[in-house]
Amino acid sequence: MSTATAENQLQDVVAYMQALGRQARVASRAMSRAESAAKNQALLAIADAIETSMEALKEANAKDMAAGRENGLDAALLDRLELTDERIVGMAEGLRQIANLPDPVGAIRDFKYLPSGIQLGKMRVPLGVIGIIYESRPNVTADAAGLCLKAGNAAILRGGSEALHSNQAVAACVKRGLEKAGLPAEAVQVVATKDRAAVGELIRMNDFVDVLVPRGGKGLIERISREATVPVIKHLDGICHVYVDDKADLDKAERVAVNAKTQRYGTCNTMETLLVAEAVAGEILPRLAARYREAGVELRGCAKSRAWVEMAPATEEDWATEYLAPVLSVKVVSGLDEAIDHIETFGSHHTDTIVTEDYTRARRFLREVDSSSVMVNASTRFADGFEYGLGAEIGISTDKLHARGPVGLEGLTTEKFVVFGDGHIRQ
Amino acid sequence: MSTATAENQLQDVVAYMQALGRQARVASRAMSRAESAAKNQALLAIADAIETSMEALKEANAKDMAAGRENGLDAALLDRLELTDERIVGMAEGLRQIANLPDPVGAIRDFKYLPSGIQLGKMRVPLGVIGIIYESRPNVTADAAGLCLKAGNAAILRGGSEALHSNQAVAACVKRGLEKAGLPAEAVQVVATKDRAAVGELIRMNDFVDVLVPRGGKGLIERISREATVPVIKHLDGICHVYVDDKADLDKAERVAVNAKTQRYGTCNTMETLLVAEAVAGEILPRLAARYREAGVELRGCAKSRAWVEMAPATEEDWATEYLAPVLSVKVVSGLDEAIDHIETFGSHHTDTIVTEDYTRARRFLREVDSSSVMVNASTRFADGFEYGLGAEIGISTDKLHARGPVGLEGLTTEKFVVFGDGHIRQ
Repeated sequence: MSTATAENQLQDVVAYMQALGRQARVASRAMSRAESAAKNQALLAIADAIETSMEALKEANAKDMAAGRENGLDAALLDRLELTDERIVGMAEGLRQIANLPDPVGAIRDFKYLPSGIQLGKMRVPLGVIGIIYESRPNVTADAAGLCLKAGNAAILRGGSEALHSNQAVAACVKRGLEKAGLPAEAVQVVATKDRAAVGELIRMNDFVDVLVPRGGKGLIERISREATVPVIKHLDGICHVYVDDKADLDKAERVAVNAKTQRYGTCNTMETLLVAEAVAGEILPRLAARYREAGVELRGCAKSRAWVEMAPATEEDWATEYLAPVLSVKVVSGLDEAIDHIETFGSHHTDTIVTEDYTRARRFLREVDSSSVMVNASTRFADGFEYGLGAEIGISTDKLHARGPVGLEGLTTEKFVVFGDGHIRQ
Repeated sequence: MSTATAENQLQDVVAYMQALGRQARVASRAMSRAESAAKNQALLAIADAIETSMEALKEANAKDMAAGRENGLDAALLDRLELTDERIVGMAEGLRQIANLPDPVGAIRDFKYLPSGIQLGKMRVPLGVIGIIYESRPNVTADAAGLCLKAGNAAILRGGSEALHSNQAVAACVKRGLEKAGLPAEAVQVVATKDRAAVGELIRMNDFVDVLVPRGGKGLIERISREATVPVIKHLDGICHVYVDDKADLDKAERVAVNAKTQRYGTCNTMETLLVAEAVAGEILPRLAARYREAGVELRGCAKSRAWVEMAPATEEDWATEYLAPVLSVKVVSGLDEAIDHIETFGSHHTDTIVTEDYTRARRFLREVDSSSVMVNASTRFADGFEYGLGAEIGISTDKLHARGPVGLEGLTTEKFVVFGDGHIRQ
């Protein structure tokens, strides 16, 4: 392609994205005014449209699958890309669940009279326009659209280019549902070009996009965080720890440490490093090692832990690795202080647990560990929007600003001050 | 200076800032554990140290003032730079007020049992390390240090280079107070170099700094927002509006519109554009014009408003200008919809007021105007941390994420999830 052609094309993409942005901004104003009933009606209508379009969705998906096979996508990617009957019904069900959630918008908290006579409160309001950037799974299109919509936002969705036909087919259902409920069709727009320049523009359209939520692998999220000028809600790593204190109930320790590692391997709230107090290492490590062996978990340990259990030596790199696999690093520590230091040094501020019966140590761990979820005697696997009762989850944030931990509808809103007076003036 | 020397010097500054960052991070852990009593003791001890160091502070300040005069700083800048007896006592008083505020850290909200049996809550915790970048006023050093400290954070402060001696003298008082209370002296560090590369490094030390709060002119804040990789709490503009509806009580309208413009001119919550409904323009505009004339406010109006009051024509640029001066732009609008459109197009999402007795219009204005403070029948001048009862203010945010509107101690904290179990595991 000649430089001139490439430049024209880039200008086209920029103009296209700017148009999406402008339309989203206009639609976001109508969405912020929409009543709960209209938003719920749209969600249910989208769910119905998805179920009645099952054949069309599968046809569009078949094109993506064929192209994916041709382009040599690996089996895991192809699996994520596929829309089966079950997954299509799952999308519709997810939207119906979102319709059932309470509407966060409009609630006013801390409403009170102040000495000057004005009445002040904080009102929960939509963020405005949310940009979602995600990889191959087309069901994210329905899920993310539903959450943004329920929180009163407009959304611009940019899925993986390998799922373009599938995503556009889902988008058509979303559009029908919005129109049926009398809401603007531009409230949810799915980017219709494979051109990567579209992402570059989306993450820098500060006038039109209020926040980005990237969903996908660490590489994608790192790249977007680095290049975006629009604020990003993200988590990069889930290097979660369980610390078994010497005052632990070892039955609870076994239950929690096994569940935190083996209940699922590929999730960000799965334990990646087990820390064990020296005084109980001889008792608990062999018990745990037997359970992990049974489950097929490979262990890598520090020198002290290898005195009790036969395993490969752990390197410095292991402490900083999110395996997302049946691998666990194990370290014997002298006690609570060393455990907290290790978590501070190598953790990712995601989710960390202490197992202990000691009141003061539990209190210290809760206060001093600087992670989005800090737990006592509970599996790290609980760190999840559904388990936390948020009803839904757009992602998990390990950032400290705005949203931290599992992010549900509330994370897709903000607050503004509202003031009521009766001609009040400042003296 | 040769390139090699310049490079060495830059490396020195980078190394110096990295050292400050590392020390701040370590100190922030001790600060996050500090009890309210220790933090308050430090605040009171710093206040005492400032008062007993009055002569030393004035001596240091005299050096800055002399250099400022020599370098031709203008009168306004020199005024801001000067530390008088009154201002020194004011710094100490401010710190005592912060000591009297409730400690936000450690509060747990929404604490409840979930279906799985775990108990979940959200605990308010310090942000960690705050970077404050500000201009000439040395009293910001004490004020910002006090707020960061009370919220359990470590702070790195970078004041204007013209105030270097003054800021270092204040820093010495802060250090003495921290040490007296048994808190780490590195909890508050004031950058001791005039080299601008220090700012460039501070705003990109994501490992060591959790959030930046720039305080100063728009130029400074824009530059930092553009170049920082660390998140920024900021506001750029205060283009605030008062809309006088045709259902307004015109006595209230006069009171509010006069106060919003004339109570102070240089503040960000001062009204810059007055919007008046066409139906009442003939009645209210001449009344208001008389009051503004009395106060010495220059008016610039749209064509319709100039039919009622003699004034210069307003240009498109006027609608987008924060005068920070006795100048007001005036526009006649057809009604609520045009008023909201104007605010959306030209406003800065800071503070906007409707004056009306109409219930439905008040409700619409509150819901639809997307600003950090939205008011009914009250002066925009109320948008302030002290007036809102926050007890203190580190700044006003017109961003939507994290903190919005006046930012007090709560804006210098974040929340984490805490989970209590009894050996609970996920099924």
